[in-house]
Amino acid sequence: VSEWSRIERIKELLWDRDANIPVGIGDDAAVIAESANVVTVDSQVEHVHFERAWLSMEDLGYRAVMAAASDLVAMRAKPVCCVSSLILPNGLTDAELCSLVSGQRRAADELSCPVVGGNLSRGAELSVTVTVLGGTSKPLLRSGAREGDYVYVAGSLGLAAAGLRCLQASAEEKAEHVRAITAWRRPKARFELLSALEGASAGIDISDGLVQDLGHLARASGVQIVLDDIRFDPEVTAIEACFGLSSNVLTLYGGEDYAIVATCRTPLNGFERIGRCVSGSGIVFNGTRLATDGGHDHFRSPSSVSEDYSSRHSHRSRF
Amino acid sequence: VSEWSRIERIKELLWDRDANIPVGIGDDAAVIAESANVVTVDSQVEHVHFERAWLSMEDLGYRAVMAAASDLVAMRAKPVCCVSSLILPNGLTDAELCSLVSGQRRAADELSCPVVGGNLSRGAELSVTVTVLGGTSKPLLRSGAREGDYVYVAGSLGLAAAGLRCLQASAEEKAEHVRAITAWRRPKARFELLSALEGASAGIDISDGLVQDLGHLARASGVQIVLDDIRFDPEVTAIEACFGLSSNVLTLYGGEDYAIVATCRTPLNGFERIGRCVSGSGIVFNGTRLATDGGHDHFRSPSSVSEDYSSRHSHRSRF
Repeated sequence: VSEWSRIERIKELLWDRDANIPVGIGDDAAVIAESANVVTVDSQVEHVHFERAWLSMEDLGYRAVMAAASDLVAMRAKPVCCVSSLILPNGLTDAELCSLVSGQRRAADELSCPVVGGNLSRGAELSVTVTVLGGTSKPLLRSGAREGDYVYVAGSLGLAAAGLRCLQASAEEKAEHVRAITAWRRPKARFELLSALEGASAGIDISDGLVQDLGHLARASGVQIVLDDIRFDPEVTAIEACFGLSSNVLTLYGGEDYAIVATCRTPLNGFERIGRCVSGSGIVFNGTRLATDGGHDHFRSPSSVSEDYSSRHSHRSRF
Repeated sequence: VSEWSRIERIKELLWDRDANIPVGIGDDAAVIAESANVVTVDSQVEHVHFERAWLSMEDLGYRAVMAAASDLVAMRAKPVCCVSSLILPNGLTDAELCSLVSGQRRAADELSCPVVGGNLSRGAELSVTVTVLGGTSKPLLRSGAREGDYVYVAGSLGLAAAGLRCLQASAEEKAEHVRAITAWRRPKARFELLSALEGASAGIDISDGLVQDLGHLARASGVQIVLDDIRFDPEVTAIEACFGLSSNVLTLYGGEDYAIVATCRTPLNGFERIGRCVSGSGIVFNGTRLATDGGHDHFRSPSSVSEDYSSRHSHRSRF
C-alpha cells in the first residue's frame, strides 16, 4: 500500500472544513484562527505504555489524544487543536491504521480539539505522539498551593492502574473488571472542570500516580500534603486483593487515571476533598511520609514502597 | 541512572528563564507570552531517517529541530517555541542524551525558538519528534501559485541527498564530500528569508525532494511547473558520477536540503529562478513530465524514475 494513499485516507478520517482552522491537513503546517498559548506533548510507545493485546487500535488513538489533552485541564486551558506523529511498524495493516486514526478523531471530536496535522514514519515499534495546543488567560500552576489550602480530586484514583493490572494478568476481559479496564483504555480529559477550577490555587493531572504527582505539586508550592480523607474505590481494593497487592498501592501509586487534583481554600464544585496543605514538605498518609518518586521510573527498578506495582508498563516522563 | 536525574539534566541543558515563556519546562504544560497560530510536527526515526553511524547525537538533535522549523519558513511564519518527544533505547548513555539535547538547544538558540517542554520514553528504537509553534499574520500556502508566476529557490538542491549517499557508502568522512555531508547533518531553517517571502504567491520547503514537493505545490495551485533554469551543483554532479547514479537524480529527487521554493511574478531577494508556472498540471523538466511521487515513499519500492536513489532512508510524510 502506498504511503500516499494512507495519507489521503488519514486526511479523510481526520479532517473536516473548520472555520476555526483556516489551514488544516495538507500544507506545510496548520494555521489556526484562535491563537494558542499553552502546549504539551505526550507519547504512547508499544511495549512501554501498552501492549497491543490490551487494547484496540481505536482505544490507542483515543487514549493518546486524551492523555495529552489532560495536561491542558490541569493548566486551566481550553483545547484548541492537536497534531499527531505516528510511527508504524511494517506489519500494521491499513485497517489498523484507520482504527487508530478513528480513535484519535473520536477523542478530538469529544474535546473540540481537531487534529490539524501530523506525520507518518515507518519504525520497528508502534508509537503515537500527540502535541496539544490550548489557550488560557489565567494558567493554573503546580506552584500556587499554600498552607491552609485543601486538596481536592476529580476522577478515579487507582482504577486505571487496577484495569492495567487485570490486562497484564490476562488480556481476556472479565465482566467484574470492565469498569477498571475501561478506565485504563478510555481515559477522559476533564475539560468540564475548567469553570470549577477558576478558584483553585494549584493543579496537576494524575498521570504517573497520586503520590508522585502530588509530590511535584508539593515541591513546586513549598508545602507538605497530608492525605487524610481519601476514599478508596472498592473495585480497586478488590483487584488489589485479587492480585495479592498491598492495600492502597494502586490508589496511591497507580497512574493513568488522568484525575485532576487541585488545591483551594474553599470547596471546588465536582471535586472531593482528599487532604490538606500544611507547613513542611513531602506527602504524608496514615502518619507515614511516602516516597514521592515511587510512582514509576522508566530507567530503574521500582522503589521498595511500590515494588509490587509493576513499573515496566509505565507512564509519562514530562519535562 | 534514574529518569528523574535525566530530566533534571535535560532541564538544565534546555531551559533558561525567558520573559517570553512565563511557564517553561517543569509544569504540566508550557505557557508562552506570545500566542502561536501555526503548528507542525516532524519525527526523525533511527533506521528510517538516520543511522547512528552517520551523524553525532548533537547533529541528530540539531537537525530534528531545524527540519521541523523549516516548515514554518515555508508558511511565512516566525518561530515561537517547540516541544520535543524523545524515545530512547536502553543502551543510550547519559552522555549521548546530553549531546542530543545540546544539539536541540543549539538549533533552538540559532532560531530563537526555545524548547519549552517535552517528554522522555523508553523504546526499542531511537526517535526524536519535534513540534514547532510559530506565528504569522499572512500565511503563505501551497495553493497560491498562478500561471505566469516564476519559481524560485533559496538553498541547495540535492546536496544533502549527495551527502547522505556518501554516508550510506561509508561513514568515513572524505574531505571532498564535507560540504555535502554537512548539508545533510546540519540543515538550516531559513528564517532569514521571511521578509523576502512577503511578496511570494506560494511556498513549500524541499524535504522530500524537489519534484515531489513541487508536485504538491503544482497540484494545490492548479498549475504546471516547467523547470527550465535549474543550475546543478558541481559537487552533487560529481557525487552522482562517483556512485554511478543518473545525472540530476539527486537534484530532482533528493530530499532533506530544506531549501525553500516560492513562486512570484517578480524576483525574490535571495532566491534564484529555476522555472515558471504555466497552464496544465505536473512538473516538466527537459521536455519530460516527471513522476511527482518518485521522491520517496516509506511503504513501497522506489519508482522507476528514481530507482537509483535509495528511498529506504527516506524523509517525511506530512499530513
